[in-house]
Amino acid sequence: MLERARSLDAADPQASFRHRFDVPEGVIYLDGNSLGCLPKATPARLEQVVRGEWGRDLIRSWNSADWIHLPQRVGAKIAPLIGAQPHEVIACDSVSVNLYKLISAALAMRPGRKTVLSEPGNFPTDVYMIEGLEKQGLAQRRLVAREELAGALDDNVALLMLTHAHYKTGQLFDMEALTRAAHEAGALVLWDLSHSGGALPVDLTACEADFAVGCGYKYLNGGPGAPAYAFVAQRHHEAIAQPLSGWMGHAKPFEFSDDYTPAAGVDRLLCGTPGILGLAALEVGVDLIAEIGVERLYAKSQKLSEFFRQCLSEADVELELVSPADPVQRGSQLSFRHGDAYAICQALIARGVIGDFRDPDILRFGFAPAYLRFEDMAEAVRHLAEVIETGEWQRSVFRERAAVT
Amino acid sequence: MLERARSLDAADPQASFRHRFDVPEGVIYLDGNSLGCLPKATPARLEQVVRGEWGRDLIRSWNSADWIHLPQRVGAKIAPLIGAQPHEVIACDSVSVNLYKLISAALAMRPGRKTVLSEPGNFPTDVYMIEGLEKQGLAQRRLVAREELAGALDDNVALLMLTHAHYKTGQLFDMEALTRAAHEAGALVLWDLSHSGGALPVDLTACEADFAVGCGYKYLNGGPGAPAYAFVAQRHHEAIAQPLSGWMGHAKPFEFSDDYTPAAGVDRLLCGTPGILGLAALEVGVDLIAEIGVERLYAKSQKLSEFFRQCLSEADVELELVSPADPVQRGSQLSFRHGDAYAICQALIARGVIGDFRDPDILRFGFAPAYLRFEDMAEAVRHLAEVIETGEWQRSVFRERAAVT
Repeated sequence: MLERARSLDAADPQASFRHRFDVPEGVIYLDGNSLGCLPKATPARLEQVVRGEWGRDLIRSWNSADWIHLPQRVGAKIAPLIGAQPHEVIACDSVSVNLYKLISAALAMRPGRKTVLSEPGNFPTDVYMIEGLEKQGLAQRRLVAREELAGALDDNVALLMLTHAHYKTGQLFDMEALTRAAHEAGALVLWDLSHSGGALPVDLTACEADFAVGCGYKYLNGGPGAPAYAFVAQRHHEAIAQPLSGWMGHAKPFEFSDDYTPAAGVDRLLCGTPGILGLAALEVGVDLIAEIGVERLYAKSQKLSEFFRQCLSEADVELELVSPADPVQRGSQLSFRHGDAYAICQALIARGVIGDFRDPDILRFGFAPAYLRFEDMAEAVRHLAEVIETGEWQRSVFRERAAVT
Repeated sequence: MLERARSLDAADPQASFRHRFDVPEGVIYLDGNSLGCLPKATPARLEQVVRGEWGRDLIRSWNSADWIHLPQRVGAKIAPLIGAQPHEVIACDSVSVNLYKLISAALAMRPGRKTVLSEPGNFPTDVYMIEGLEKQGLAQRRLVAREELAGALDDNVALLMLTHAHYKTGQLFDMEALTRAAHEAGALVLWDLSHSGGALPVDLTACEADFAVGCGYKYLNGGPGAPAYAFVAQRHHEAIAQPLSGWMGHAKPFEFSDDYTPAAGVDRLLCGTPGILGLAALEVGVDLIAEIGVERLYAKSQKLSEFFRQCLSEADVELELVSPADPVQRGSQLSFRHGDAYAICQALIARGVIGDFRDPDILRFGFAPAYLRFEDMAEAVRHLAEVIETGEWQRSVFRERAAVT
């Protein structure tokens, strides 16, 4: 397997991009869908922001370094990765906070309808943000199994809100078909792109999506807790209103008026003062992914995951696949079910193979295609096979739960 | 003046702390109340977080570097600066977002009351966040001049929400008296400490405050757009509920349940994944301010501002003071009214004296006591006197408005 892997790497036109990332020695990192690797250009850029823009130029950098437009600038760079126009995307706050803004905006645009429709097992923060609005009396949360979603689109549904690639299984929704079905039922649609943006081609414009959010610290390699992004289709720019109406979303924030007048378009999604360090790091990650190109990344991630499955098969490792077997139906990951997934994950980490455990029984391997090699697939499977064959995962040290699992 | 200033500096036991900050050469920085200076320890700490914790240890740092508890750890360090207990403060999100959480929490604790009382001319984001809840039908915003606030506390008021030190004038509210008056009227109180936390002694516990928020990038020197903090008095820890119920505020986020169970105490104020770079930089700033001590900082800031006024008087500069003349009545700043405040501010900046303009006619000088010298006061006044005497502020170049004023 290793030999074949190396020849695939040697023939890979994208192999050189790995060297643009600081991938630690001795680590096979299959968790870029949880926290992406550090781009090599990031430390120098942060040094410039910290020592130069903050330390030397101080408050003047809001103008001289154009900090004031950093949310828009980073948003505009994310836009082509998700099939949006530059002025339709802004980088700010967290996915959760942006969900709250956009669910609220959608509800206000559909008076008389209160249902926000999603699926059980969607990423928790997504369904919790609906719950927050429900407790305020402003929404009704309805969770329906994915196969029954289209049929559940009745005239109480204000918003259909789904995660494009499922965080546990990687299973993809048909974004175009579901958006159309929702529109036919008079509902709006919000897509969470956290597990697809920057890894697979997404075309929000072609799908006629209304709203979207996405994560900065996974496939965009923006660093731990990086700012998120939010998308609003241009046709809704006049209509959207959101309740987190902080001063940075004001049309003229530096007039310091007592009354709120929303800024134009997605600028009104801004709330408080944007976190410049986080945005600066995110910009480096976005620039690098944009340079490689999402189409190329997607093609490679499919090859990587299929090669991983071949290796499993050749190594006679039998694990229950919970991701779709057809690579077209899944995001850039493979997940398996095992009663001892947690301990197996820990045993692999001890060997330098970093995957992810997802409660209660999912072993998740993410294939961030920008910096992974076919060799990593072969070696990861070799370690996995050894861990399972030798039963080393049964050691008690691998069963102790950490704060973050 | 300069000679007297230098002898005051020579006798100042706090003078050495200036060297812990990276204050640029040739700059007199009177805008630390807008963006605090860079602590010299910050770049190395960020380098460690970026190259070590993110780059090398990757996802494992949520446990190994205890990223997961960084909001609590930084909050606990802020707590003694504002008279709170460590478990009553958490660092996260922006002031604006935290205001929304706490206004919402207060309204839910006072069913039947909808009024949120504040003053006109409060910092815009504060009054805009009430407006956001008003548009959702959940609050009624009422703005009453500060002298009439106590009398306006009727039984519709759920929450009195004020900024302790006014951003324009520095005028202080009597936190204890107003909190008591609000409580007697059955209302809760939320203090915005953005212009006082870390600069003056604040004792939330002694004042029996219910809630507070504050800014990380001003007197705490956390960097541009640093995370903010939020305080909830322990007696409300069981009762508070807030609608931005993201996964990080869940009691067991890594169980990935479909239903939200709030974490204990202030942890339930967390929403999305916290921004680690911003929190790490903030921690350095907080550590430094805690080391110097707020009492000492406050004593020096009063001496600095009084010396600044003496210098003005000796230089025969006549400007209308809009801050209280009594230093006990004001925060760490002096503000003056002038019809051409913008151009004067720009002319000063061109000379390396960085103050702040606040629309429409306020010239604001902040005296961040951790790194300013008496010499800076004397020199700033010399420049100000020259700018006004020579009329150089009348040049057209100083009248062009930048994006951020």
